[in-house]
Amino acid sequence: MKKVYKAHIIYTKSRDGFEVLENGYIAVEDGRVAGVAADLKTLGCEGAEVTDYGDCLLIPAMNDMHVHAPQYRNQGIAMDLELLPWLQQYTFPEEKKYADPAYAERMYRRFIRDLWRFGTMRACVFATIHTESTRLLMQLFQEAGIGALVGKVAMNRNCPPELSEPVDEMVEGNESLIAEFNRPEALVRPIITPRFVPSCTHDMLQACGDLAAKYGLPVQSHLSENMAEIALVHTLEKESSSYGDAYNRYGLFGQTPTVMAHCVWTAGEELELMKRNHVMVAHCPTSNLNIASGLAPIRTFLNEGVAVGLGSDISGGHDLNIFRMMMHAMQVSKIHYLQHRDNPFLTLSEVFWIATKSAGRFFGRVGSFEPGYEFDALVIDDHDLNHSDYALLHRLERFIYLGDDRQITHRFCRGTEIQEPQII
Amino acid sequence: MKKVYKAHIIYTKSRDGFEVLENGYIAVEDGRVAGVAADLKTLGCEGAEVTDYGDCLLIPAMNDMHVHAPQYRNQGIAMDLELLPWLQQYTFPEEKKYADPAYAERMYRRFIRDLWRFGTMRACVFATIHTESTRLLMQLFQEAGIGALVGKVAMNRNCPPELSEPVDEMVEGNESLIAEFNRPEALVRPIITPRFVPSCTHDMLQACGDLAAKYGLPVQSHLSENMAEIALVHTLEKESSSYGDAYNRYGLFGQTPTVMAHCVWTAGEELELMKRNHVMVAHCPTSNLNIASGLAPIRTFLNEGVAVGLGSDISGGHDLNIFRMMMHAMQVSKIHYLQHRDNPFLTLSEVFWIATKSAGRFFGRVGSFEPGYEFDALVIDDHDLNHSDYALLHRLERFIYLGDDRQITHRFCRGTEIQEPQII
Repeated sequence: MKKVYKAHIIYTKSRDGFEVLENGYIAVEDGRVAGVAADLKTLGCEGAEVTDYGDCLLIPAMNDMHVHAPQYRNQGIAMDLELLPWLQQYTFPEEKKYADPAYAERMYRRFIRDLWRFGTMRACVFATIHTESTRLLMQLFQEAGIGALVGKVAMNRNCPPELSEPVDEMVEGNESLIAEFNRPEALVRPIITPRFVPSCTHDMLQACGDLAAKYGLPVQSHLSENMAEIALVHTLEKESSSYGDAYNRYGLFGQTPTVMAHCVWTAGEELELMKRNHVMVAHCPTSNLNIASGLAPIRTFLNEGVAVGLGSDISGGHDLNIFRMMMHAMQVSKIHYLQHRDNPFLTLSEVFWIATKSAGRFFGRVGSFEPGYEFDALVIDDHDLNHSDYALLHRLERFIYLGDDRQITHRFCRGTEIQEPQII
Repeated sequence: MKKVYKAHIIYTKSRDGFEVLENGYIAVEDGRVAGVAADLKTLGCEGAEVTDYGDCLLIPAMNDMHVHAPQYRNQGIAMDLELLPWLQQYTFPEEKKYADPAYAERMYRRFIRDLWRFGTMRACVFATIHTESTRLLMQLFQEAGIGALVGKVAMNRNCPPELSEPVDEMVEGNESLIAEFNRPEALVRPIITPRFVPSCTHDMLQACGDLAAKYGLPVQSHLSENMAEIALVHTLEKESSSYGDAYNRYGLFGQTPTVMAHCVWTAGEELELMKRNHVMVAHCPTSNLNIASGLAPIRTFLNEGVAVGLGSDISGGHDLNIFRMMMHAMQVSKIHYLQHRDNPFLTLSEVFWIATKSAGRFFGRVGSFEPGYEFDALVIDDHDLNHSDYALLHRLERFIYLGDDRQITHRFCRGTEIQEPQII
């Protein structure tokens, strides 16, 4: 049974520009886009019942390619430290609390509610080492109907004892989650998640790579975020020729679909390896600004054909709103451009494409309204921002720069309208 | 008659840290702070009626040191250009419309309503060349009860003919506004406003300097924002040793209180001149990012004792929210720090002090809660952001990073609670 929606439809097929249908129609069947057209006849839906969103914009929903659910409480605090001291003073003490599933439930429900508020319908999520809290987080995503790849975090060195887990327990915990959640086409699935090289012994990295290979699971981690971190990796992994190579030698760098957060300082051999292995970059511009990591070379990644998505990186980033990440991505690229005039800064259609279609491929056919794409969509009622005669693309730009959750009135994931998740 | 308010009071006396009074009291008399204390007895107000804001934060109101009211419509659009083409394609065509006072009234009312929404109680405002629309803007600020220095813009070269005004008409228009509005202690006063050197002939700059001297009026303009602009100034003003010197030789650089927007590339002799002449910098980090101007050296200005405030610079900046400017100022300073490790990035108390007490001095004793300061204040009800046991300063930080107009429940300017300005 097809459903038909009418609105001003805006999306990107490529990074070069927007597709815009003023008062267009979109048909959805079995959760996927069946077609987009200017009228019902062309759509092959004459006489169909139409849900009419009037003067609203209809756009693809957001994908958050890197977010730490257990850092939700630390969102927007202590933004005056760099990466390594910030982990010790704020991040690790908070993550310890997730040994308690009751605490985890209270926070995770709010976290998912806020993803919903800002129109994020798919996310790559770091949990903690705690298997039961991670199971709970996955169940809460299922309950909400929001797509997520959720990682029980693997770590066993350079961290507090309460956050260190023996390798066999990491494997056992993961296999328990895999048995419960690893179904083809499931909206919520496990993802193998070594925290980052400094936190994992060789045995731990090897066990992670083995799990990814055995169950065909995707991988996420951090890469080349901060200069002090990179120096530490070089000390710890003398046999690796680059930080990326330290993942690659354990089967954690594109052997299964892989997304690496940050890649601020990625270049040379590491960049070549990412390209060859089809590793995706989760660009987290807000975080990179807040904790003074640097300016990721996104134009270079695009030129080289390396896939890029956007991540909020709560709580290095302070904001769950992926539209704000688009703004920060453009701003960061402008500073980059000031220093490298041969690298033009990112345009609006480029960051929109990065956040939607480019990121969405990590979840299947997600992030566009081309036929066959899953219908992940947002309805934007921007009348309160729209006090003059703005063109549709200027309305979208104003929503990205000035808007917030107040303008998002409907949210769809895989064709289903998603209601506000409950908090406790 | 003293009024007494109770809340969690937070403000800055210096840039080195916050003053915090949990459940503190503040007494206000004749629009000015009479005292702040932990209890009524110490405050000398035993038995006084207290307005109790419960668990809310009470902080100084915001000052916007650089904003273009007639660019309100362009807020959040066309962020893909640099300064000079952006002026030609977007700014000037919009400013022409302000020849029509009916258009001006509709837009200016919305502009002032939105300043109010985001808690800005004082502003340095550029209008257009049009005397009647500028008069209207000043009347609307008076009606709203919000403090403003409003500038009829002087410009007569390198601009469209409709935005070029002969020198004698500029003087006549300004004198008409000065006669009406230039009262001691008035909340709304004129400010002499040559647009910037490229827009003003020598005669125009001289006439502006003469007006400022004759009526003892403050001055605002733009300085060293963009490399192409600076190159243009060097071509136009061969006899000046720096961009700042081109203002200085006409009495527009500290001869009366002066605020210069941007100063991204200010250094050397220009910096020395600013310091010697006590010229204030209106730092506009969002604008500097959006239109790829550069990273202003704010740490250097602070070290050198040059006064700094924050400006939204609508519509180079897209956001009227000065709290967001604090965030962007910290982010910009972090990128600066990555490139100049001997310049520590700005802290939260520093940007808060810059936005409040440092900027506020341009309006008198404004921006602090020390005795004798005008009571410009905001009540922040952050319960929706405050789902855990946050310390008061973390609550403030979360409001700055995550909050918006929804948390601002009361606004005071010079002791009077300011109601929502009407739009038409």
